[in-house]
Amino acid sequence: MEYRKLKDEDNDGGGGAGDLESLRGKPLSAITVSNVASNSSEKSKWKRKSIVTLALTVLTSSQAILIVWSKRAGKYEYSVTTANFMVEALKCALSLAALARIWRNEGVTEDNRLSTTLDEVIVYPVPAALYLVKNLLQYYIFAYVDAPGYQILKNFNIISTGILYRIILKKKLSEIQWAAFILLCCGCTTAQLNSNSDHVLQTPIQGWMMAIVMALLSGFAGVYTEAIIKKRPSRNINVQNFWLYVFGMAFNAVAIVVQDFDAVMNKGFFHGYSFITVLMILNHALSGIAVSMVMKYADNIVKVYSTSVAMLLTAVVSVFLFGFHLSLAFFLGSTVVSVSVYLHSAGKLQR
Amino acid sequence: MEYRKLKDEDNDGGGGAGDLESLRGKPLSAITVSNVASNSSEKSKWKRKSIVTLALTVLTSSQAILIVWSKRAGKYEYSVTTANFMVEALKCALSLAALARIWRNEGVTEDNRLSTTLDEVIVYPVPAALYLVKNLLQYYIFAYVDAPGYQILKNFNIISTGILYRIILKKKLSEIQWAAFILLCCGCTTAQLNSNSDHVLQTPIQGWMMAIVMALLSGFAGVYTEAIIKKRPSRNINVQNFWLYVFGMAFNAVAIVVQDFDAVMNKGFFHGYSFITVLMILNHALSGIAVSMVMKYADNIVKVYSTSVAMLLTAVVSVFLFGFHLSLAFFLGSTVVSVSVYLHSAGKLQR
Repeated sequence: MEYRKLKDEDNDGGGGAGDLESLRGKPLSAITVSNVASNSSEKSKWKRKSIVTLALTVLTSSQAILIVWSKRAGKYEYSVTTANFMVEALKCALSLAALARIWRNEGVTEDNRLSTTLDEVIVYPVPAALYLVKNLLQYYIFAYVDAPGYQILKNFNIISTGILYRIILKKKLSEIQWAAFILLCCGCTTAQLNSNSDHVLQTPIQGWMMAIVMALLSGFAGVYTEAIIKKRPSRNINVQNFWLYVFGMAFNAVAIVVQDFDAVMNKGFFHGYSFITVLMILNHALSGIAVSMVMKYADNIVKVYSTSVAMLLTAVVSVFLFGFHLSLAFFLGSTVVSVSVYLHSAGKLQR
Repeated sequence: MEYRKLKDEDNDGGGGAGDLESLRGKPLSAITVSNVASNSSEKSKWKRKSIVTLALTVLTSSQAILIVWSKRAGKYEYSVTTANFMVEALKCALSLAALARIWRNEGVTEDNRLSTTLDEVIVYPVPAALYLVKNLLQYYIFAYVDAPGYQILKNFNIISTGILYRIILKKKLSEIQWAAFILLCCGCTTAQLNSNSDHVLQTPIQGWMMAIVMALLSGFAGVYTEAIIKKRPSRNINVQNFWLYVFGMAFNAVAIVVQDFDAVMNKGFFHGYSFITVLMILNHALSGIAVSMVMKYADNIVKVYSTSVAMLLTAVVSVFLFGFHLSLAFFLGSTVVSVSVYLHSAGKLQR
């Protein structure tokens, strides 16, 4: 039984009573100081985690709203590859700007200097490469699934992230949290149901396989990024981001040459850019940084919850902005997602 | 936090270690005997509970299948009120038959004799009366909601049963179990979604109010029945059933006179009965008895879970029997219901 387990962990881990026990014999002032320090450091950690999670949620939902807005404004007339490159470049620039401020205030240390070893940097291209493969597959899956069907199949990401998080990062979720994760996947899918959703059940086996492979790739990229960033906790996140994004730029430069070389040569790099394009690039860059921050200060599970809740927020905001109607399925799915969020926190393994 | 509470109850209640503690000093043989006896009585209680729950699930799902079958066979040509009366009469007869066997084997005791006091019997007409009011309302709600919409609104029953179970029977559910109950309601509704389900959101306020009142009536009738049956645990269930069903017969006799008097007078009591009608009456009678048994040996929460799972079973069986297609919404809803069943048992308050 899960409850027995939880209880045991509760007893094994340093509970309140245990702490007091171990502090016996120390001078009172030391106890007070160390307690205050650990309390305030716990609090500031929790605060930082909340802020980055909230930022990711808000940025992700405004991202979806910008996409709806740009679709309403007309077709994409810019080349997507140049926009992706600009996102990576902007993230690089922002990381460098943050680093410059830190160097000015704190000086250059072992943890915040930009130069690195081959040993440290060799793993950084992996996530970018995985995303590239996933994006290539994306072109092929549409031979088997239509766009709304693909949106539904993308919810496999939730499950694959949970499984890879468990296997690769070796972090444990309680049984209640696993149940919550299955519910999150069901709830998100339910919220997206419409009258054509049943088509997805007719997806040929190749489509299912590709969807599963893509979910595994994207889950693996996320979990791998977390592993890279958490490997050296003292390392400044902006340096880690810089190296992630440099390789992102490189891979996207290749994509420009392969896919849009002629268009860029004939019409220019920034052809078709509008105010909303610039907003979208800015938003993608900021959400990308928020994702890294969530990986550093929280984890992939928090990221999945954050982006799922963002999906629901988007729909609610769209009611006011675009006069969307919410379906019964949306209400049911949102309720299931909300219960899942509650269960995830209620089912926390006590450490 | 829920986990803290669970842990506390775990410690307060007689856990394994506490039991051993309290048994210290007793002769070993006494310990062994009392342990074996309490184990085997626990086991037989659990077995009885499982059997009645399983019976209710199987009977409820076959009930729905009979309804689909009879609809396919053509319209109802018999009068529904006489069929309802026959169901109550059959339940009465079955209870009496069971009692006759018990009297023969065990003799007549205080707990199994049929005669009763006004004090005991006065509460027995209440559930039947509540169901009558609810069934009358059912005619009026169709002015505001169509039949599929009504099916969806009926899921309010799940929530109303949970709330009234808590308030009237004063039994506690853990927070995880409440979450599970909300999920059960969402899962059942999701499983029933079809392309027209969104119509239900346009239900006028009168329709919502009536649906809520009906859910409260039906929840109250269920919880009140449990209260009646559990009030005197040693009382034989067949005597309790007999009195419940006698009043059921009486109320249904009134319904025949009010609604179908002319038809019964002109065409006869059993006009339009077919083999399938007889099967349906038999099935309803047996499920009615199973419901009483679940109230006696388990509770309303188990009843709700049992009938919800039956609803899903019906759909799966219908795929094979009638070539129905299962929707994506059905798979999602079923998964949510399954997780809910797991959470209900995982979230059990340790007593």
